Amino acid sequence: PGGPRARGCAGSREVLPTCERYAVRRLPFARLEDRDVAFFERVLPGRVVTSEEEVKPFNVDWLKSVRGCSQLVLKPQTTAEVSQVLRYCHERNLAVNPQGGNTGLVGGSVPVFDEIILSTALMNQIISFDKVSGILVCQAGCVLERLNEYLEQQGFIMPLDLGAKGSCHIGGNVATNAGGLRLLRYGSLRGTVLGLEVVLADGSALDCLTSLRKDNTGYDLKQLFIGSEGTLGVITAVSILCPQKPKAVNLAFLGCQSFAKVLETFTTCRAMLGEILSAYEFMDEKCMDLVERHLKLSCPVTDSPFYVLIETSGSNSTHDEEKLNNFLEQAMASGLVTDGTVATDSKKIKASHLRERITEALTHEGYVYKYDISLPVGKLYDLVTDMRARLGQSAKNVVGYGHLGDGNLHLNITAESYSHSLLDAIEPFVYEWTAGCSGSISAEHGLGFKKKQFIQYSKPREAVVLMQQFKAMLDPKGILNPYKTLPSAP
Amino acid sequence: PGGPRARGCAGSREVLPTCERYAVRRLPFARLEDRDVAFFERVLPGRVVTSEEEVKPFNVDWLKSVRGCSQLVLKPQTTAEVSQVLRYCHERNLAVNPQGGNTGLVGGSVPVFDEIILSTALMNQIISFDKVSGILVCQAGCVLERLNEYLEQQGFIMPLDLGAKGSCHIGGNVATNAGGLRLLRYGSLRGTVLGLEVVLADGSALDCLTSLRKDNTGYDLKQLFIGSEGTLGVITAVSILCPQKPKAVNLAFLGCQSFAKVLETFTTCRAMLGEILSAYEFMDEKCMDLVERHLKLSCPVTDSPFYVLIETSGSNSTHDEEKLNNFLEQAMASGLVTDGTVATDSKKIKASHLRERITEALTHEGYVYKYDISLPVGKLYDLVTDMRARLGQSAKNVVGYGHLGDGNLHLNITAESYSHSLLDAIEPFVYEWTAGCSGSISAEHGLGFKKKQFIQYSKPREAVVLMQQFKAMLDPKGILNPYKTLPSAP
Repeated sequence: PGGPRARGCAGSREVLPTCERYAVRRLPFARLEDRDVAFFERVLPGRVVTSEEEVKPFNVDWLKSVRGCSQLVLKPQTTAEVSQVLRYCHERNLAVNPQGGNTGLVGGSVPVFDEIILSTALMNQIISFDKVSGILVCQAGCVLERLNEYLEQQGFIMPLDLGAKGSCHIGGNVATNAGGLRLLRYGSLRGTVLGLEVVLADGSALDCLTSLRKDNTGYDLKQLFIGSEGTLGVITAVSILCPQKPKAVNLAFLGCQSFAKVLETFTTCRAMLGEILSAYEFMDEKCMDLVERHLKLSCPVTDSPFYVLIETSGSNSTHDEEKLNNFLEQAMASGLVTDGTVATDSKKIKASHLRERITEALTHEGYVYKYDISLPVGKLYDLVTDMRARLGQSAKNVVGYGHLGDGNLHLNITAESYSHSLLDAIEPFVYEWTAGCSGSISAEHGLGFKKKQFIQYSKPREAVVLMQQFKAMLDPKGILNPYKTLPSAP
Repeated sequence: PGGPRARGCAGSREVLPTCERYAVRRLPFARLEDRDVAFFERVLPGRVVTSEEEVKPFNVDWLKSVRGCSQLVLKPQTTAEVSQVLRYCHERNLAVNPQGGNTGLVGGSVPVFDEIILSTALMNQIISFDKVSGILVCQAGCVLERLNEYLEQQGFIMPLDLGAKGSCHIGGNVATNAGGLRLLRYGSLRGTVLGLEVVLADGSALDCLTSLRKDNTGYDLKQLFIGSEGTLGVITAVSILCPQKPKAVNLAFLGCQSFAKVLETFTTCRAMLGEILSAYEFMDEKCMDLVERHLKLSCPVTDSPFYVLIETSGSNSTHDEEKLNNFLEQAMASGLVTDGTVATDSKKIKASHLRERITEALTHEGYVYKYDISLPVGKLYDLVTDMRARLGQSAKNVVGYGHLGDGNLHLNITAESYSHSLLDAIEPFVYEWTAGCSGSISAEHGLGFKKKQFIQYSKPREAVVLMQQFKAMLDPKGILNPYKTLPSAP
């Protein structure tokens, strides 16, 4: 995007339009005309939003860091309607921004200019659930938390869980290949998503919505749409394999005196908890400070430079508690852990809330520079230490937390307000550092609008060229979520 | 392929060349010339095989059901060598058949005509293994069993296991998206393969060999090569996430009086064994008969129409045994299971061997018609029953076994020798039956040469057209594993 040109901040009420704030040029798509709106009104009677006030929230991202200037939100209910809309837009050369729950963190879910917003909000029907196989088939606009509640009643859970669960749509989760808290245990969406229905740029529907654990008949086309951020097609329905609801869930919140001990605790815990380990999250002291200060939550363990949240999920509570207690005894006796608490039901909520609400606490600081990095676990915290030393007093806080079990660091740098010089001190340093360790500059957030120009730090040139060829093949006019994911041509 | 024209059989010494047996026409690739061999000799000194005797085993598949007429086997050791070979073949328009351990069951691993065989046999180096993350990086020609042995010494295992493990290459496993016995527990290769290095048809190398659990930077190109059977590129190296070696492994071999009870036992077992269940295999009485008769193995449980093999893998043997015993008590008490044995260490090998050697036992019967089908678990055995009724005395045996936990049936029909009329009675009935249940006509074996013309039973036309576009984009001359995976143009 060429770097921000003016101030804009999370929490502020005024967000500069992206097209003004970033050096980005509108591509020569057609402009919306009255006859277009009239057409959409016929296809989606009563589900075409044109009032400026109502369109506004669809134009701004959750972080309030980017803002589009779309004048139109469309709310289809069926795949056939999505097809009709896209076929029309394709013919008319109108750009389209598919949008789920609009909880993305990289500016991928809102328009950059005047793209038509295609919202999946009304595509929220569960199509089927099979209790023997655990396979759920549903429309793309189902909210993750609603799906999980539905499944829990049948003795199952969704294979993914993330902070935004109350708003995010399963279609958006798949389109961004969302990771989250359960990835350590249930693996990525690339394994659990069994089928997709997708509408392509020209309006044709691709039905790969199979409900089979195994299907080796030809190339696995659906994989291309997982994580492509709506740039190759609009996901309209999802078939996903859901695990059984664990009968017992336990949490332990621990304090460690060094990051080396966080790592050693992980190795010990993985060996002793084995198959019941379902999350291993870490956060540094500063994260906890911010959560306590801004959200008035109290931390059950104190005075440690690092904290670890361990979750176990299993089928036998007696066995699970025995495993967890054995592990804790060993971790305490060997000095890996200096303080800790095992969550009872009432405390359970608090301990996991502390972890889940770090993102929210950070937004209270002022401006937040967010990085979502994959690194070899051994080097995970070195980046935070190096960044802190590099920035010194110019940053308010440099904090690190994340999914240690997956090698995923959330590095956040806060300041009173946005400053170009601070950004220059952070970037490209953070990307070069990451590339130096063969890490990924976007572990689970995607590239969206804000990170697309940095793809070369994690992908070789040949791979990017191939991606551009795929894009050109599937969306020759480039109408689907333009300005996102892939870098602009040089 | 238009159907076989003459007899050919597993176990027979004479295999008719595929080009004679099937109605298939050679595509206009260049013919091998002396100057080509001379070029390859320079690139791969001492690793170019031209003697008819030595080339022979590379031309015939493991089932002895198809035979190519290649005159040349190349054995590169490095990715750079594979690049040089493919660049040359691309320029010269020479067709290439990539080959791993040659254990495929659908004729995908041997040439159809005179394609040059590119063997990964000498690309067998382990590149790295990280004990903290469990990530293995190795060359494509590593034998699965060797990798597993290497990992076991470090306290880990490969996330996949299959009968052919002693010969199959990890590159071939990935190229065919192999399933196998551990899929129920560790998921498919689409989740466990973290990175690939691939040489494309024009010789350019695509380095996506990252070792990160999470990486959302652009489209996940490697997925396209997983399961594409060597038709889009040659996999030269693999990065894969390996689980810890379970401290305790237990087996139970059970007898059930009906398939309904096999299903109910599965549901009960999944609920009671939960996270430690690592395999749920079933086989019918006739499978066991054949294994006993042809391989002189004795079955630990007898007189049941169905048998179930359950495997548990966990981190605490006391807990695991308690769970398994509780489950068995319940299964026996409720009449789900009428007889059973829990494997001690010595018996362990026998029980799992029974299951693993069914394929081998079948080849002793004469000719085997093999089908590898995904179905909703509830309907899994109906296909066997229907087929048995349909074929009556014209088949020697109609047997069913497979990975019930994954909804995967291996349907095998045996006869003294190949007969066209028997084939006509089986096909397309078996495919229509499968399509009628929205199943997959190839769950884990792939399409290769033998099943490619039936893809439409499991994939819509639009999907096949898109696959053909990918093929044309990545391999415009069509030199990579021609005549495989995708149907010939109509």
